Amino acid sequence: MKNNEMNILYGRNPVREALRSGREADSLYIQDSIENNIQEIIGLAKKNQIPVKKVPKSKIDSMVEFESGEKGLNHQGVVLKVPSVSYSTLDDAVKLAEERNEPLFLVALDGIEDPHNLGAIVRSAEIFGAHGVIIPKRRSAGMSATASKSASGAEEYIPIIKVTNLASFIDEVKEMGVFVACADMDGQSLYRSNLKGAMMIVIGSEGQGVSRLVRERSDFVVSIDMYGHINSLNASSAAAVIMYEKKRQDMMK
Amino acid sequence: MKNNEMNILYGRNPVREALRSGREADSLYIQDSIENNIQEIIGLAKKNQIPVKKVPKSKIDSMVEFESGEKGLNHQGVVLKVPSVSYSTLDDAVKLAEERNEPLFLVALDGIEDPHNLGAIVRSAEIFGAHGVIIPKRRSAGMSATASKSASGAEEYIPIIKVTNLASFIDEVKEMGVFVACADMDGQSLYRSNLKGAMMIVIGSEGQGVSRLVRERSDFVVSIDMYGHINSLNASSAAAVIMYEKKRQDMMK
Repeated sequence: MKNNEMNILYGRNPVREALRSGREADSLYIQDSIENNIQEIIGLAKKNQIPVKKVPKSKIDSMVEFESGEKGLNHQGVVLKVPSVSYSTLDDAVKLAEERNEPLFLVALDGIEDPHNLGAIVRSAEIFGAHGVIIPKRRSAGMSATASKSASGAEEYIPIIKVTNLASFIDEVKEMGVFVACADMDGQSLYRSNLKGAMMIVIGSEGQGVSRLVRERSDFVVSIDMYGHINSLNASSAAAVIMYEKKRQDMMK
Repeated sequence: MKNNEMNILYGRNPVREALRSGREADSLYIQDSIENNIQEIIGLAKKNQIPVKKVPKSKIDSMVEFESGEKGLNHQGVVLKVPSVSYSTLDDAVKLAEERNEPLFLVALDGIEDPHNLGAIVRSAEIFGAHGVIIPKRRSAGMSATASKSASGAEEYIPIIKVTNLASFIDEVKEMGVFVACADMDGQSLYRSNLKGAMMIVIGSEGQGVSRLVRERSDFVVSIDMYGHINSLNASSAAAVIMYEKKRQDMMK
């Protein structure tokens, strides 16, 4: 889904990753008082024929504040103006799995509203070899500048798929022979579950878990085994643990 | 290590957990315009004979801002004034392991400066059944209000041990027969490593990894197996994955 809206990325890692991946960009803004360790980023922009603009810190501060709605974020003097993330389709994820000759591995998010959590989950999903991240259109964070920063550029390498109705999407992938596991309370032990092969894992929000409809349509429910007094991990740590276990099982077979 | 400094906890989860655990507190501050879903917290405070003060939102805003140095944090109208965290000793962790009849399981942090990451790691450590979290005195976040909020109250249940010199501490636990694994690049595959039994896991910072001295003194280095283009997980996700794997191996034996 392409559109003409512009978005900004900030911070050296996300900007470097976007430039390395060859992502389309409008301009690179560099804080004029910065001299050190910026040559690689400038070089990448020039190689991609992206105009480089040296501007005062106040200009960069205000771009980042306008985009994120937060003051004082650490942009490290670097902003890249880019077309908004082009969301992908299920076909893109299937193609990626086929290219890698791997069983389809999807991660769906149900009600993750914190952009830091969303970004961290996208980053972990890319690292653990998932082929796509599914985000519902409503009640969920989108790939904003804040999410991109937490994702450390991972969204350049993994399809991000927006869906209108997660429950219907679950039916769609089940018809393709993909097993759907949702992470929630009172499920089967994560490390005693069989997570091998084509699979979609649904992660809910910290407070609410997954929605009733999503839980009902899933093939089974997995729970991270917990041994303390606190009874929930933060959403991005929980997601990382479950994706790790899925990939571990695929690799140890 | 007890002291007379006061600290604040904010947000409903951290405050509720602190009250449930019976933690000593000076006063509970409740935003006067809040009526709903606050009865449990007020009830816990009364049970513990802690004075409850209804104050304007501006008062709570300023307490939280003063403590955290950040504006606009979401305190949910609840602040608990408490004596600063009482740090524990290695003996406390050993005692906890003995009480549970488990091999000693420690998590040491090397250069984690972000209080959100520290808090999330403490929370995961408590959940995965570790008996203590080790924090160096220098170049590391302490258990501030921000860290407590991310920890969701977990620091009430797991010993937090401050050490002056992490390398010497590694020698000390090795002499007790504890294996020390540090998480870093170019180590052995996490899921092919043997993590069973008495063990301390050292987690480094995202950018820097663990320090050279710490790496050299560790018995071995483990690396999380990664399959994408991005080459590092965020520190709290990495910590959660490694602690999960350690506990999984102990439980599957």
